[in-house]
Amino acid sequence: MAIGFQAGLRDVIAANSAICEVDGAAGKLRYRGYDIADLAAQTTYEEVAHLLWFGELPERDVLERFTRELSAHRALPDPVVEAMRRYPSTIHPLEAVRTAASHLAMYDPDAHDNSPEATHRKSVRLTAQMATIVAAWRRIREGQPVIAPDPTRSHAENFMLMLSGEPPDPVSEEAMNAVLILHAEHEFNASTFAARVAVATFSDLHSAIVSALGTLKGPRHGGANEDVLTLLEEIGTPEQAEPYILTRLEARERMSKAERADPRNRIPGFGHPVYKVDDPRAAHLRAIGRRLAERTGVATLSETAEAVYRVMKARIDFPVNVDFFSAVIYRALRIPIDLCTSIFAAARIAGWCAHAMEQYGDRLIRPRANYTGVAQRTFVPLEARS
Amino acid sequence: MAIGFQAGLRDVIAANSAICEVDGAAGKLRYRGYDIADLAAQTTYEEVAHLLWFGELPERDVLERFTRELSAHRALPDPVVEAMRRYPSTIHPLEAVRTAASHLAMYDPDAHDNSPEATHRKSVRLTAQMATIVAAWRRIREGQPVIAPDPTRSHAENFMLMLSGEPPDPVSEEAMNAVLILHAEHEFNASTFAARVAVATFSDLHSAIVSALGTLKGPRHGGANEDVLTLLEEIGTPEQAEPYILTRLEARERMSKAERADPRNRIPGFGHPVYKVDDPRAAHLRAIGRRLAERTGVATLSETAEAVYRVMKARIDFPVNVDFFSAVIYRALRIPIDLCTSIFAAARIAGWCAHAMEQYGDRLIRPRANYTGVAQRTFVPLEARS
Repeated sequence: MAIGFQAGLRDVIAANSAICEVDGAAGKLRYRGYDIADLAAQTTYEEVAHLLWFGELPERDVLERFTRELSAHRALPDPVVEAMRRYPSTIHPLEAVRTAASHLAMYDPDAHDNSPEATHRKSVRLTAQMATIVAAWRRIREGQPVIAPDPTRSHAENFMLMLSGEPPDPVSEEAMNAVLILHAEHEFNASTFAARVAVATFSDLHSAIVSALGTLKGPRHGGANEDVLTLLEEIGTPEQAEPYILTRLEARERMSKAERADPRNRIPGFGHPVYKVDDPRAAHLRAIGRRLAERTGVATLSETAEAVYRVMKARIDFPVNVDFFSAVIYRALRIPIDLCTSIFAAARIAGWCAHAMEQYGDRLIRPRANYTGVAQRTFVPLEARS
Repeated sequence: MAIGFQAGLRDVIAANSAICEVDGAAGKLRYRGYDIADLAAQTTYEEVAHLLWFGELPERDVLERFTRELSAHRALPDPVVEAMRRYPSTIHPLEAVRTAASHLAMYDPDAHDNSPEATHRKSVRLTAQMATIVAAWRRIREGQPVIAPDPTRSHAENFMLMLSGEPPDPVSEEAMNAVLILHAEHEFNASTFAARVAVATFSDLHSAIVSALGTLKGPRHGGANEDVLTLLEEIGTPEQAEPYILTRLEARERMSKAERADPRNRIPGFGHPVYKVDDPRAAHLRAIGRRLAERTGVATLSETAEAVYRVMKARIDFPVNVDFFSAVIYRALRIPIDLCTSIFAAARIAGWCAHAMEQYGDRLIRPRANYTGVAQRTFVPLEARS
């Protein structure tokens, strides 16, 4: 007998999880019990990956070993890079990332071993390699040489080096580290849930990550990052924010329900299926964005973002989400607009792996449909149809 | 406030759907109101794809147009085939299929257009191309020339031609057509649900299909096909079936709950999250398998399968599922064991596309977790950890 229907599984519990606690009413987010404010300000991405996977912040010697393990696995197999060089340069970067991640499985010695030990080894490799794929594709499509990973640098620092070809200044490195941490995990968001659905069939980790990447790509999820930057560019200056937003909101009033549901008709960066108040990640990203904006000549973009935020607060009090202020940071760090979702993927990979590890011990995820189609009817052979 | 918890979303309704009706208690399956028995016996895969996508069996002229449209799009872009030639020949075929399907998006002119019209065009292309990918990979890894699709042949006939290099005899063609129809659709099975989760973020169709492929791969889902053939080979003869199965069942009795949940400790081909009685597809597949077995020299395998079925019925009355008797057919059609899940994918693609079309009008799928982790705790900086 089927159980009550909640469209989109909104607020429906799909499984137990000990990884992350989202308090949507209070606007709080904790990884394994720790507030993300402390993690973003005082840890490295490596520490957070360890925390998500094993449940505890590592002591110094454990962290050093874990960091060495991660940094030793950043390189991609040559055939994967060679294949990427043949991709058309005009594709959406996440297509390159999705295809290359799928390709990676072919060279992973543990590809089909779903034991906890093998899944741990694959999580290390995939987390290390995801940043390399993203950076390599950025370089390849721009006709620049691919930068080899530097195992002596931290995950965030090396990622920025591979992306731009130059070591980042400390403030930019700190910003990237915080962005990676704040995007590393978020309970059963759609891409993580997709990874769990894959793993629940006892499929392998690469399959789960590829599934998550395909799901992240949508503008109602990771893709929203890119739409925020496009929006801010379209608005142009802080003065234009209020008239622009009001015009958009008024146009929405006149739309049908279906039109309003279309992500293209939403103001990207606002609204969240779980948070009823401002997304706790947004406050940190906002602060980081402001600090960067002072230094890197994106003051206008940052002020436009502030103006949009004020208008949205004042007019419809719609809560801001994680995507909005990260857009300012990505611009300040000179990330091309269409690469934002791939940066998100390079962060969320740690969370996807944590959830895969947890889901392997759990059961198949297989809901039911509420059948709304035609009733049973008699078959009509081709000859008799008209 | 979170809504009641059902592990694995078992019997939980995730969305409305008008595509397929599964009656798990009565063992009935209907696509758009038509019993699968009639469809498998009296239609082509092309008719069923049309039915699933548009809700009606096509009249002759519509079917002719639709069949031409499908057959015109079977060829793969050259760079995709070239990339496949570089894949290691030892990989699991579904890794090749998953990676090639992801790669295909780069050459699809509609890749990022999620309108109903573009999604229709992409569904035609992906459904036509999926069979070509599967067949091409089989040929490439065996060092055989890739067979160009023949647009004058039906989907099933051309698929078999591309797989083996020779046109099939009528009985084999009929069997393949029925197998494709019987595997084309099954409500919110895990891979279809994964495709819907991807599309619900407004991601593109290729992303959704790649996600579905990653999910299908698991032995609790599509991968079970392959495990059935391995099981039957291990048993060897009909006489060995009873002692072998009894030994396995007795070993299960002594296992922990976690061990019993491991797909490797199950008898593949039996049990289903929805059917409480024999899977209605199994009866048709059983009949087809018997007919083929008489002709193609797999009588022993077929009799072993019958013996296993009888033991399972008599001893634990555990219902047979779609995977069990399809294994006999795949062997009779000379499909290599590890290609079975890929054949499944080449069939289910029609259902995945139907569900993607339907889901685009629906909302984000984003359930919640029941948090079971540690309570809020105070952050400890690295220096103070011990």
